[in-house]
Amino acid sequence: MKHFVSTKNLTAEEMITIVELAERFRNNHPTFDHQLFVANLFFEPSTRTKVSFLVAEKKLGMETLDLQMEASSVTKGESLYDTAKTCESIGANLLVIRHQDDNWYEGLIDKFPIPIINAGAGKGEHPTQCMLDLQTIYQEYGCFQGLNVVISGDIKHSRVARSNAHALQTLGANVYLTAAPGFEDASLGFSYISIDDAVEMCDVLMLLRIQHERHGKEQYDTSSYHDKYGLTIEREKKMRDRAIIMHPAPVNRGVEIASELVECRRSRIFKQMNNGTYIRMAIITLLAKEWGMHDGDLTEEFGTLYGII
Amino acid sequence: MKHFVSTKNLTAEEMITIVELAERFRNNHPTFDHQLFVANLFFEPSTRTKVSFLVAEKKLGMETLDLQMEASSVTKGESLYDTAKTCESIGANLLVIRHQDDNWYEGLIDKFPIPIINAGAGKGEHPTQCMLDLQTIYQEYGCFQGLNVVISGDIKHSRVARSNAHALQTLGANVYLTAAPGFEDASLGFSYISIDDAVEMCDVLMLLRIQHERHGKEQYDTSSYHDKYGLTIEREKKMRDRAIIMHPAPVNRGVEIASELVECRRSRIFKQMNNGTYIRMAIITLLAKEWGMHDGDLTEEFGTLYGII
Amino acid sequence: MKHFVSTKNLTAEEMITIVELAERFRNNHPTFDHQLFVANLFFEPSTRTKVSFLVAEKKLGMETLDLQMEASSVTKGESLYDTAKTCESIGANLLVIRHQDDNWYEGLIDKFPIPIINAGAGKGEHPTQCMLDLQTIYQEYGCFQGLNVVISGDIKHSRVARSNAHALQTLGANVYLTAAPGFEDASLGFSYISIDDAVEMCDVLMLLRIQHERHGKEQYDTSSYHDKYGLTIEREKKMRDRAIIMHPAPVNRGVEIASELVECRRSRIFKQMNNGTYIRMAIITLLAKEWGMHDGDLTEEFGTLYGII
Repeated sequence: MKHFVSTKNLTAEEMITIVELAERFRNNHPTFDHQLFVANLFFEPSTRTKVSFLVAEKKLGMETLDLQMEASSVTKGESLYDTAKTCESIGANLLVIRHQDDNWYEGLIDKFPIPIINAGAGKGEHPTQCMLDLQTIYQEYGCFQGLNVVISGDIKHSRVARSNAHALQTLGANVYLTAAPGFEDASLGFSYISIDDAVEMCDVLMLLRIQHERHGKEQYDTSSYHDKYGLTIEREKKMRDRAIIMHPAPVNRGVEIASELVECRRSRIFKQMNNGTYIRMAIITLLAKEWGMHDGDLTEEFGTLYGII
Repeated sequence: MKHFVSTKNLTAEEMITIVELAERFRNNHPTFDHQLFVANLFFEPSTRTKVSFLVAEKKLGMETLDLQMEASSVTKGESLYDTAKTCESIGANLLVIRHQDDNWYEGLIDKFPIPIINAGAGKGEHPTQCMLDLQTIYQEYGCFQGLNVVISGDIKHSRVARSNAHALQTLGANVYLTAAPGFEDASLGFSYISIDDAVEMCDVLMLLRIQHERHGKEQYDTSSYHDKYGLTIEREKKMRDRAIIMHPAPVNRGVEIASELVECRRSRIFKQMNNGTYIRMAIITLLAKEWGMHDGDLTEEFGTLYGII
Repeated sequence: MKHFVSTKNLTAEEMITIVELAERFRNNHPTFDHQLFVANLFFEPSTRTKVSFLVAEKKLGMETLDLQMEASSVTKGESLYDTAKTCESIGANLLVIRHQDDNWYEGLIDKFPIPIINAGAGKGEHPTQCMLDLQTIYQEYGCFQGLNVVISGDIKHSRVARSNAHALQTLGANVYLTAAPGFEDASLGFSYISIDDAVEMCDVLMLLRIQHERHGKEQYDTSSYHDKYGLTIEREKKMRDRAIIMHPAPVNRGVEIASELVECRRSRIFKQMNNGTYIRMAIITLLAKEWGMHDGDLTEEFGTLYGII
């Protein structure tokens, strides 16, 4: 694992390693004892993912560079490769990138001399979100094999759906999708079921936001969405006793989920965010190990404390 | 004091405590010896208040998160509560919020699990600005009882006027207001006087900026404002010998104050900014004490060095 | 050297000192052992210069304040002087400023109580870019005397051209300019030659970006620019064996330079960015020395390690 850009090539073992390391980091984590610079390049708006990365990086003792790429020299016509190479030349030891292209990392990472983490790629993948989602499920059930996981919402425009569907399948979960007409994605080879069937049979219900910003000119009318396709108060009552509700957020209250359910007993929405910090620490630490960024002491500490590395 | 959002409920004693602690911090201040994260959420533009908070936080050894909320997931329709709860879930130990609603903190702070500081609430309150203003007056006069303080300008749209009027009254000052027609606020129970009367009788003249951005569509014509209502060079000459000039800034030179007076001998405008750093350190430290964020050593150090806590 | 705003008043000796100190800092550099705050005020977009300053400042152990001035209280009508004075009042020990006015620093720096570095002044000067360019040439040739340096491109709107032409002349290089019609600047007293003559006789070819954002309403048509005035693959073949290609970036691939040449053996474009970090560390360190910001230990360490200060 030289870069962390997709869940497609991850083995079940690798994913479990990340999840378990994240869980250990909650109580005890290493910090780098020399200066390492992370450049966070966000070409699309982000609150939670960016803050989560910043906190993770600072907890590991890294120096963070927060680049507001929307107001930067991209307006002067620079390519993503040139911007990334610029950051590396100036001194960045790690790049965290969110960009509107679905496959921005293809071609870029092949020979790139420092590790790159995908913090969101258009409608493509969002693999760190996937890992924190896995951690949340793992905390609940301790396994993935045989779990019924339903991903529900604007599948077509969701990078979270794509990353999660692949990863959950690799881990042995039964993945189902629910989507309003027009929100299906035929390229994902999973069965579509209705939201009413979904709530009755799922162990995990992953709700997605309607991605208005990726719909082009025609704006989707959400007026009847909640009743027809959302998690209403009535539908929640039909869920299995242990079943949990997840959402990558930001939540549109009253659209994909009733406002009253956002913090209900089944909801793990804010727990997911909490997990995100430790997941990102784990991913960064594993990449740093892979690239030999650890110093002697830390490697030893890792050997003792965290075993798996 | 679990949160710091308004001057309405502060006692005179609490305010003096903050002012005196800030003054001590100028020469000697504690730093946290474990990692604490502050999320600074500014939904409205800010230079001085944000930088002042960042410097205060860094001087206390905190990790700062500077969120550009104007370009963030708010555009995806997230509520302030959800954004605040997100920051807390990710790992923030303290929130500093500026937001355009006059009462954004009502309902939010009741059960919120970490302390919140109001860095500006629409036309409502700006309590940290108030505290630094108090510190500036205290440095000058050593008391508030019986001082004539005139707040002059766009009272109606000023959160600074509101916070300061309440606090100064609690502290025993005689508060007067001056305002051009249309800039009065009937809800504040203080006497209005003319700017010409004000300059002759005040010990402290607090000037305010015309808040164009809060006037809606009709833009106020400032062409004759300076002569009619501003602090002109002629009016300044009529001020009492010891009387001082204050302004929360940014200053519109030539409108509410003659450009030549911004750094005159009476002006405490840049002194106010300087005080702001220490005031914010004091407020953060007191909240941290209240919430048990201090570690043992710091508490002891506080007991010894700063007495009052 | 109380401020660093222009190359006009720098002696050859001063420039060589900066370049040599930067080179030493690559392997070993001091850090401040007390808290020093740098406010980075960028009123124009910047990626590379801002990140370069941030990395340099953090490597020196400084606390960085990254002010997004485009979205700040400048919109409330504050002057640059008032903003700069505000930062100083709040606690900044050093200001790094990029601003659209060609001469923003004139009048500002005369009595300003903390050092100011020019990170780009409209079409005026960009002296830290100049120093890193000098370092790049010095690494190659070990001297400047008698070198043929050609600056090519949108000379008229380039602050880099202006800073570099002055400095290179002071250092004894032979400076030539090439420019498409309309891009000449008559105020610079250097000879204009054709790009075809330039590639055959130069030791250093400094390419410049077309500064569309400074052209006003009429946008320049770049369709035939590359063939007529750019560094094409054919022209590169005619360059002297040791001649190098430089560019301050961002590069417009296929306009001023063929995309394939950006990372060719002659190109020092990413090397320039790498040098920038150390150059800025050197400049900050020298200013800190001048203003007595060093503590005893550091001064001694400097005396021993770096000799020249």
